[in-house]
Amino acid sequence: MDIAARRSADPDHWTLASAIRVLSMDAVEAANSGHPGMPMGMADVATVLFRNHLKFDASAPHWFDRDRFILSAGHGSMLIYSLLHLTGYEQMTLDQVRNFRQLGAITAGHPEYGHVEGVETTTGPLGQGLATAVGFAIAEEAMRAEFGADLCDHRTWVIAGDGCLMEGISHEAIALAGHQQLGRLIVLWDNNDITIDGRVSLSDRTDQHARFAAAGWRVLSCDGHDAADIDRALTLAAQDDGRPTLVDCKTIIGFGAPNKADSSKAHGSPLGKDEIAATREAYGWSHEPFHIPNQVVADWRAIGQRGATARAAWNDRVDALDDAARNDFARRIGTEANPRLNAIIDAFKVQTLEAKPKVATRKASENVLEVLNAEMPENFGGSADLTGSNNTKTGGQGVFAPDNRMGRYIHYGIREHGMAAAMNGIWLHGGFRPYGGTFLTFTDYARGAMRLSSLMGLPVVYVMTHDSIGLGEDGPTHQPVEHLAICRATPNTLTFRPCDQIETAEAWEIALSQDATPSVLALSRQNLPLLREATAENLTAKGAYVLREASAEAKVVLMATGSEVEIAVAARDALEAQGIATRVVSVPSMELFRDQDKAYRAEVLPANTVRIAIEAAVRQPWEWLLLGERGNEERSAFVGMEGFGASGPAPDLYKDFGITAEAVVERAKALL
Amino acid sequence: MDIAARRSADPDHWTLASAIRVLSMDAVEAANSGHPGMPMGMADVATVLFRNHLKFDASAPHWFDRDRFILSAGHGSMLIYSLLHLTGYEQMTLDQVRNFRQLGAITAGHPEYGHVEGVETTTGPLGQGLATAVGFAIAEEAMRAEFGADLCDHRTWVIAGDGCLMEGISHEAIALAGHQQLGRLIVLWDNNDITIDGRVSLSDRTDQHARFAAAGWRVLSCDGHDAADIDRALTLAAQDDGRPTLVDCKTIIGFGAPNKADSSKAHGSPLGKDEIAATREAYGWSHEPFHIPNQVVADWRAIGQRGATARAAWNDRVDALDDAARNDFARRIGTEANPRLNAIIDAFKVQTLEAKPKVATRKASENVLEVLNAEMPENFGGSADLTGSNNTKTGGQGVFAPDNRMGRYIHYGIREHGMAAAMNGIWLHGGFRPYGGTFLTFTDYARGAMRLSSLMGLPVVYVMTHDSIGLGEDGPTHQPVEHLAICRATPNTLTFRPCDQIETAEAWEIALSQDATPSVLALSRQNLPLLREATAENLTAKGAYVLREASAEAKVVLMATGSEVEIAVAARDALEAQGIATRVVSVPSMELFRDQDKAYRAEVLPANTVRIAIEAAVRQPWEWLLLGERGNEERSAFVGMEGFGASGPAPDLYKDFGITAEAVVERAKALL
Repeated sequence: MDIAARRSADPDHWTLASAIRVLSMDAVEAANSGHPGMPMGMADVATVLFRNHLKFDASAPHWFDRDRFILSAGHGSMLIYSLLHLTGYEQMTLDQVRNFRQLGAITAGHPEYGHVEGVETTTGPLGQGLATAVGFAIAEEAMRAEFGADLCDHRTWVIAGDGCLMEGISHEAIALAGHQQLGRLIVLWDNNDITIDGRVSLSDRTDQHARFAAAGWRVLSCDGHDAADIDRALTLAAQDDGRPTLVDCKTIIGFGAPNKADSSKAHGSPLGKDEIAATREAYGWSHEPFHIPNQVVADWRAIGQRGATARAAWNDRVDALDDAARNDFARRIGTEANPRLNAIIDAFKVQTLEAKPKVATRKASENVLEVLNAEMPENFGGSADLTGSNNTKTGGQGVFAPDNRMGRYIHYGIREHGMAAAMNGIWLHGGFRPYGGTFLTFTDYARGAMRLSSLMGLPVVYVMTHDSIGLGEDGPTHQPVEHLAICRATPNTLTFRPCDQIETAEAWEIALSQDATPSVLALSRQNLPLLREATAENLTAKGAYVLREASAEAKVVLMATGSEVEIAVAARDALEAQGIATRVVSVPSMELFRDQDKAYRAEVLPANTVRIAIEAAVRQPWEWLLLGERGNEERSAFVGMEGFGASGPAPDLYKDFGITAEAVVERAKALL
Repeated sequence: MDIAARRSADPDHWTLASAIRVLSMDAVEAANSGHPGMPMGMADVATVLFRNHLKFDASAPHWFDRDRFILSAGHGSMLIYSLLHLTGYEQMTLDQVRNFRQLGAITAGHPEYGHVEGVETTTGPLGQGLATAVGFAIAEEAMRAEFGADLCDHRTWVIAGDGCLMEGISHEAIALAGHQQLGRLIVLWDNNDITIDGRVSLSDRTDQHARFAAAGWRVLSCDGHDAADIDRALTLAAQDDGRPTLVDCKTIIGFGAPNKADSSKAHGSPLGKDEIAATREAYGWSHEPFHIPNQVVADWRAIGQRGATARAAWNDRVDALDDAARNDFARRIGTEANPRLNAIIDAFKVQTLEAKPKVATRKASENVLEVLNAEMPENFGGSADLTGSNNTKTGGQGVFAPDNRMGRYIHYGIREHGMAAAMNGIWLHGGFRPYGGTFLTFTDYARGAMRLSSLMGLPVVYVMTHDSIGLGEDGPTHQPVEHLAICRATPNTLTFRPCDQIETAEAWEIALSQDATPSVLALSRQNLPLLREATAENLTAKGAYVLREASAEAKVVLMATGSEVEIAVAARDALEAQGIATRVVSVPSMELFRDQDKAYRAEVLPANTVRIAIEAAVRQPWEWLLLGERGNEERSAFVGMEGFGASGPAPDLYKDFGITAEAVVERAKALL
């Protein structure tokens, strides 16, 4: 069907969709930067979705029971900005659209969560939106099971492109979604056959229908430029048949641009003045840039108000709850920490101090979770197939599965990246605090989504066990050495490496109190003694503190984290026995220590002492503590790793790599 | 078929396979650590493979034309150690097997390349072996096309488990292999239905046959414990029909262990004394631990010698080449740098100094590659669908594809992780120096394989463009801030951030001279002026050097990398104009600077000056240069990023984040 025929087939639809297309190409042109082709190609699908299917109310972007719309192909950001503007999201003024990609505008190059209302999750790194959507759909199922369809009853719609489907994370996401039978998850595939380098056939010949079907998905198709056909497909897709749905929308990138449509020329740069003029002509759109006729605006605004009735009814149902139920629901869909958290942790710490357990911090973490999960229904655990190693599952959680939506533990499978993205989605949806485990070294596999936790400010918790050469025989592929540095270098990330069960409990308390920062808990495989001698205060919250005071004014300060604090304490005892006053500073979180005031930092790390840092990892993050704030290069040393680890029993490795109390004592004496 | 029937069906095979099984369970028992179940389950398949199909000669582990055998399910390392021992690899003595997972032994927990002959690539992080194998198969096709089947004519065999197939990287790998029609790649799937958490059905319901078929693979099946059936399947698989082949080997994990087979109990821990005794009985194997009867050893050794004839014939064919051809081939399959490299770069630098181009360093990199690729047939380029942005393709390379195996550029598709792993495989195979591009921020997606480049010591080159907020409008998802810290924290990695076309050329020279270290080239999107004024020496090789000397004894030293060196030079000029003697030190590679002697470092960074470091990234890697070697906290500053970036034109961002010459001047004056 040619453009003219399309225009006449459904003029109302054509006009609505054209508004998206011209806004998109005009905004990209004005910015002299951006991606016009995707919004132009998917405008028809998006129009039908918003007009007939998506449950939303533009006046209430945070309405809990809205359908979620996720633009996984985030480079097509003008598609969502156009939709938000046209349907009447208050923030998304025409000025914002005009200022696309300008500093200070909410119309960033890629859609950013928290930066603009109506954007459910940050996208741009391909595949992330799709994988995050799986978390949304999981949370929706779980909340519906727990609170009923009166309060939670919505879908998650995703637009994904060929890039999303090529990325490895898409495999983890679609397999997880298929396994979990997430029937409310609908992916609209912008099947335009174009990538940046050219035709998809340059790099791929995957039969996507067969691929999704193999993962347990329902697969539908439509002509992505035929409103009636799109509507038919979306109507079917919206019927939950116990499978997630892929809708193959056959589209033309840069639809209507006479010389650039259907080519990578339409993908990532402005069309140019002449091409835009020609495209306007093809659309039959004679209006100036950024001018949308009143009737078109009115029609779109009406679409934006479609959901008002449903929202009012939902509000009535919430109001009809008894106070306790309403408050509980409100708390669950909010972001505040559980009011019981502090008391639970305090009691646990007191018990710990009495019991003096010598356990791995991964086990300590399980012990904490046992008491927390019993009282915090919002905790949603999981592991990337290392449940017994990460110690992430507690009694009574139940396994979340198609036949048990009340389960609060997910077997994510061997899918670290998919797990991290799903956790982002679970938090973003609302209702739960997700945590998930893998080995610290597999941060590498999950980085793409972990970075988005930090960038979006989502307080998910990464339970990263086997955090050093202390894991022993599995060898260097499994032994993190640079990963603490990676986590610490990442903005807005709390990295904890607790030394015993009390610090582990404190780290959990802090992690579960966050509302805008993810946490990484680096936990040992090997057993560690209880080192803390007091519990009244959450000392971990200070980032670093004096764990063992010197017998006199300290000549030596030993700093350490996690499993190496035990070594520091042993070295201190040896040094003290030789008359050398030595303090041990535990550093469970560098980020939190950096946030303390200068006076506290100076109190913990006085100037003019020998300073030694001990951590079975690379030195990079320690330099400021060794050399800064009156540290002294000639009187400081680092006892840690200089390269990759090795395979062998942990005690042999510590000895071989020179991370021992003896080595610390020797270095201290040499520096004195 | 029960065990007894299996034993009697093919007693010779049974005995050979039993030797693997008992060695594996005994070694894990002795180590009190490891994974017995997988080798026990795949012993039959491996026996048939080594006995009847794999082209190899145990006396010549480095023979170029051997088939490659890759144990992607690396936790089953005792399978390959058993095979290497039994077939007679000299290094793999019985003592090594006895010392499985002990420090100093070559029998590490996971198979490590370079640590033991016969291990083609390091595996353990799941999916990596499979994805690396794709690179092996690509290189084999390319070498066969270039040098003929007389010199290169072999297959790549992979054993992969459910974990490998769940990881996202497997999707990138199988789609790439299917697209490239790698008919010599054969994946033997250890389909044992068990993961660490339990049955596969806990986390997955993927129809793997349909999935692989959807990616263009041939799919075969066999009973993984029936030697005849395995042989039938492998015989078919070995016939190149233009598709890579998956062989679904239905196996039982921990095969033969009466109480632990077919459960996750057999996966990751020793079977225990009683279970081992019972298993021995089931096998009809009465020998002591680590004792293999002479006849069994002899039979296995004969298998290890099967390939001797083929190798001799291959040697004859190589010997029959004329000197030039033989030398060229030898050079190509060796690891030495191209002898022309230095001359090409020197000439290029001289031309650059004359032309004074103001280009982005990504464009500078393309300019370097244009002259290098014309003379270095071993260079094998590619990009993860950002060819025009990474500037990685040069004229005349041709595109590697099923119908053009002489192409030396690959469109890897939107598959950063798969690309990195394939590059590892291309290098490991021999014949080529691979380089590949993506955006620096997508280091996150490729980390799993990038770490293995470093751990294995493979001199692949990562061309990472768009290396800071300088990329502008794409915003924080695309703007790396922590990624330089990540690369610098990773052991055995050269991270370059060149400031102009001359440093870019020097970085390429160093990168292509490596034989055991990967390089990351962080390159700008935005244009940068030529700053270097001399070319005689490769100053980048010193890591840091004085780019602009102060007019008198330096009061201020400005350190910077990449696009921020221009800012440092402008700040210097402004300070000098105000009478403040200021030196600019360019720091293209911290690692190389660290390797210089103390005297040189002190010469470049004298004590008792104000020091300011300028880099549009996080501060973490700079601490030692700011505070160390007589740096001084009170007289140093960092001008860079404290958090994530933003979307906007690059000049606006630099200004907004305070990374400007004016800001540097102000800080310098405040510190003086």
